[in-house]
Amino acid sequence: MRVFGIDCGTDCTGYGVVEWAELGVKSGNGSSREPCLVALASGGIRLPKGDTMPRKLAFVYRELMLLLEAHRPEVVAIEEVFYSANVKSALKLGQVRGVALLAAASCGLPVAEYAPLKIKSSVVGYGLAQKEQVQYMVTRLLRLERVPEPADAADALAVAICHLHTQQTLSAQAPAARAVAR
Amino acid sequence: MRVFGIDCGTDCTGYGVVEWAELGVKSGNGSSREPCLVALASGGIRLPKGDTMPRKLAFVYRELMLLLEAHRPEVVAIEEVFYSANVKSALKLGQVRGVALLAAASCGLPVAEYAPLKIKSSVVGYGLAQKEQVQYMVTRLLRLERVPEPADAADALAVAICHLHTQQTLSAQAPAARAVAR
Repeated sequence: MRVFGIDCGTDCTGYGVVEWAELGVKSGNGSSREPCLVALASGGIRLPKGDTMPRKLAFVYRELMLLLEAHRPEVVAIEEVFYSANVKSALKLGQVRGVALLAAASCGLPVAEYAPLKIKSSVVGYGLAQKEQVQYMVTRLLRLERVPEPADAADALAVAICHLHTQQTLSAQAPAARAVAR
Repeated sequence: MRVFGIDCGTDCTGYGVVEWAELGVKSGNGSSREPCLVALASGGIRLPKGDTMPRKLAFVYRELMLLLEAHRPEVVAIEEVFYSANVKSALKLGQVRGVALLAAASCGLPVAEYAPLKIKSSVVGYGLAQKEQVQYMVTRLLRLERVPEPADAADALAVAICHLHTQQTLSAQAPAARAVAR
């Protein structure tokens, strides 16, 4: 399963594409092939400064549509937002988020939403982890040489990883549930 | 000038198309032709209940695009939003607003934003007017037989009227400014 993570922001919107792949992993007894998380792409879409808000939103929408068409994910994962510094910034962030959700719907993709606590818990193992801890674990889990930049890209990769972990847990639980049902 | 007014809402998004037209007006000395405000269309786009938010946003976007293409306005007028009951509702409203602004940008249309105080002031003559007063004046100014429904449609017509009034004031001020400059 290929996941397209989005981290909405009013200055920069991050994205990250992650999937499971069978990779050769070296161990004491030689090497074996194991399922690993792999980042196919990540980056940030910076809203053009000085432009009007409608044109900024059109830019983000166009860029997201191009990326979704290029990477052909099966699902979009995005952070749920419950809080903001104030109502004004919530409205601004909501505008970008609306355009991101629309891009997913325009490509016929389902959208999975995850609370920040759930994302940190899934990636770091601790729901109140610091931003740097999330970046560190994203870098390790995806075997990257350095922390993804901009920071919004790391956050987008984190929500994509969270979706893959959640799906893995659900599919592992499913046979157990079936066994109990018998 | 033809204006497409939008009143964003998380349940229903209102729209109203208004322009100046020369109409025959009866007076004591017979009839004369005078510039009048005319409503070409108005209504509400109800977000399909029970659907996911991305699909709701896709619905609003599609409906707005169809309406903009059908009515071919020269400008989109929309209410500025500064306040909301809470951050969660601001985020939701922002999502709808983002999609509305995107629709305008996708049609290459400029967007004019007006504060609620300015809209009420322009339509009723009093910035703190009640909702019913705005509806009453919209009905009178556009010579409608009854108050436009849903209420969101009346609000959308109000912001469109506000834009036309503002443009009229600006163009009336322009020659005076030129005269002073001489």
